[in-house]
Amino acid sequence: MAILVVGSVALDTIETPFARREDALGGSAMYFSVGASFFSDVRLVGVVGTDFPADAITLLQNHNVDITGLQQVEGKTFRWSGRYHMDMNQRDTLDTQLNVFEEFSPKIPDEYKSTDYHFLANIHPALQLDVLSQVEKPELIITDTMNLWIDTTPDDLWKVIAQTDIMLISDSEIRQLTDEPNLLVAGKKLLKEGPEYVVIKKGEHGAMLVDNGGVFFAPGFPLEDIVDPTGAGDVFAAGLVGYLEKTGTVTDVTLRQAVIYGSTLASFNVEDFSLERLKTLTEDEIKERYRMFKQITHFESE
Amino acid sequence: MAILVVGSVALDTIETPFARREDALGGSAMYFSVGASFFSDVRLVGVVGTDFPADAITLLQNHNVDITGLQQVEGKTFRWSGRYHMDMNQRDTLDTQLNVFEEFSPKIPDEYKSTDYHFLANIHPALQLDVLSQVEKPELIITDTMNLWIDTTPDDLWKVIAQTDIMLISDSEIRQLTDEPNLLVAGKKLLKEGPEYVVIKKGEHGAMLVDNGGVFFAPGFPLEDIVDPTGAGDVFAAGLVGYLEKTGTVTDVTLRQAVIYGSTLASFNVEDFSLERLKTLTEDEIKERYRMFKQITHFESE
Repeated sequence: MAILVVGSVALDTIETPFARREDALGGSAMYFSVGASFFSDVRLVGVVGTDFPADAITLLQNHNVDITGLQQVEGKTFRWSGRYHMDMNQRDTLDTQLNVFEEFSPKIPDEYKSTDYHFLANIHPALQLDVLSQVEKPELIITDTMNLWIDTTPDDLWKVIAQTDIMLISDSEIRQLTDEPNLLVAGKKLLKEGPEYVVIKKGEHGAMLVDNGGVFFAPGFPLEDIVDPTGAGDVFAAGLVGYLEKTGTVTDVTLRQAVIYGSTLASFNVEDFSLERLKTLTEDEIKERYRMFKQITHFESE
Repeated sequence: MAILVVGSVALDTIETPFARREDALGGSAMYFSVGASFFSDVRLVGVVGTDFPADAITLLQNHNVDITGLQQVEGKTFRWSGRYHMDMNQRDTLDTQLNVFEEFSPKIPDEYKSTDYHFLANIHPALQLDVLSQVEKPELIITDTMNLWIDTTPDDLWKVIAQTDIMLISDSEIRQLTDEPNLLVAGKKLLKEGPEYVVIKKGEHGAMLVDNGGVFFAPGFPLEDIVDPTGAGDVFAAGLVGYLEKTGTVTDVTLRQAVIYGSTLASFNVEDFSLERLKTLTEDEIKERYRMFKQITHFESE
């Protein structure tokens, strides 16, 4: 009863029109692990350098994240730097230093190999395949990706998708991957390639769940201030996968709820830089915002 | 118990990536009148030329639209021509010929002057003010506008907004009007200028209702084929205003339902060119799609 996550652990330098943070804790697996810990036990596989801050390790431990699979090796931690526009849906990558991530080869500890839920965060599809080759067939495989892999290694990516149960993908990525502008048609196309569920992330416009039974829409939570969108997709995944693992069943009912928990967690994450908001987040706050999602989408039947 | 609508009646030439229609029936008041007729009696004030086709008059009569206020004058009917991109949210205006609309001065027939609901479709704000000066204070004023008037006559537009109960406005328009990129903040700004409710139209991303009590989101209905987006905003208004007039009460509950009826009607309208889909639309189809909106947005409480 746990989630295995394989992804990046990073130190991010982030500029918004209003502020700047240097070497802030980040990376898809980092965001996911802390986010999903509100629902489930998490086992983290990743790599950091010798410069990785001790308080980040403490943060993971405080959230009961199992870091047996977090390798610490000689060298510097992966660094990413980006700048957001006034329209926070737009950002430019200023710099990427792979550092120890360049030679990263995920090693799944023996005690992780029968973990029932696997979240393959956004890393090279060849590494995602490598992970799947090392483990017993998990109950559920949830996969994330990015435009870079759609551009550069589509063949490997399609192999991952073929093994995936729930595919998480942004609106622009699925349009690019399927060469189809209509999101509903694009979602249905992807369903034919392996996944039972496709969750399309639409940024401020929320998320759209497509399965063979139909469609479900969740809005983006209305916030007056968005401080830092970094990691929103990873934390969305954390709420979604975490809630599914907690319930232990994947049905149309639980998946819709999971999309709302993903949206809930993501909406908190953007309220502050890096993982700052997740550090202070409580279960009561999560439940209250879930209820608010109900409130902002409910209407009476006729 | 009726709705008075003042707006344009036009003949549109429309190009999409897939087809073209010449001199198709259009105009904001035309779309609105036929759409709202599914819910309410409609009284149309507008102007057409001597070239206006007789079957368009028949269409209005078949839908019980009162055309006492539709002036027919010497000259040609207002013509608009536009081309949609592959992304149907984008269009270019190719040509606008005001023709008889250039000298249009709305004359409200005496028997219309105590109509309880007024829909001020997208026309020059000075004409919208002129209409309001001719009538008894209606129970409800619903106003639409466009970027052109925000650019060219903002002072008159603000005067209309000050008298408006429900403001309908697109996401790009409200950002422009309030100089505020965040839609929630922009909506709250507009609430301070007169309207009790602001409905922000977000195209394929649906609609957002903002009032002093909170926010409500309706998704865009997922369609695999969009044939012609022309008039979607007017037909959205038709479903919204029509339903409110039918219920006779404006509350948070009825307004949320009205937004869904607006979204429902608009989703039908884009399935064919011009008013073709509205011509064959039935009340059962409307009710069924309303239920589908419930289906695609519902999730269980925790």
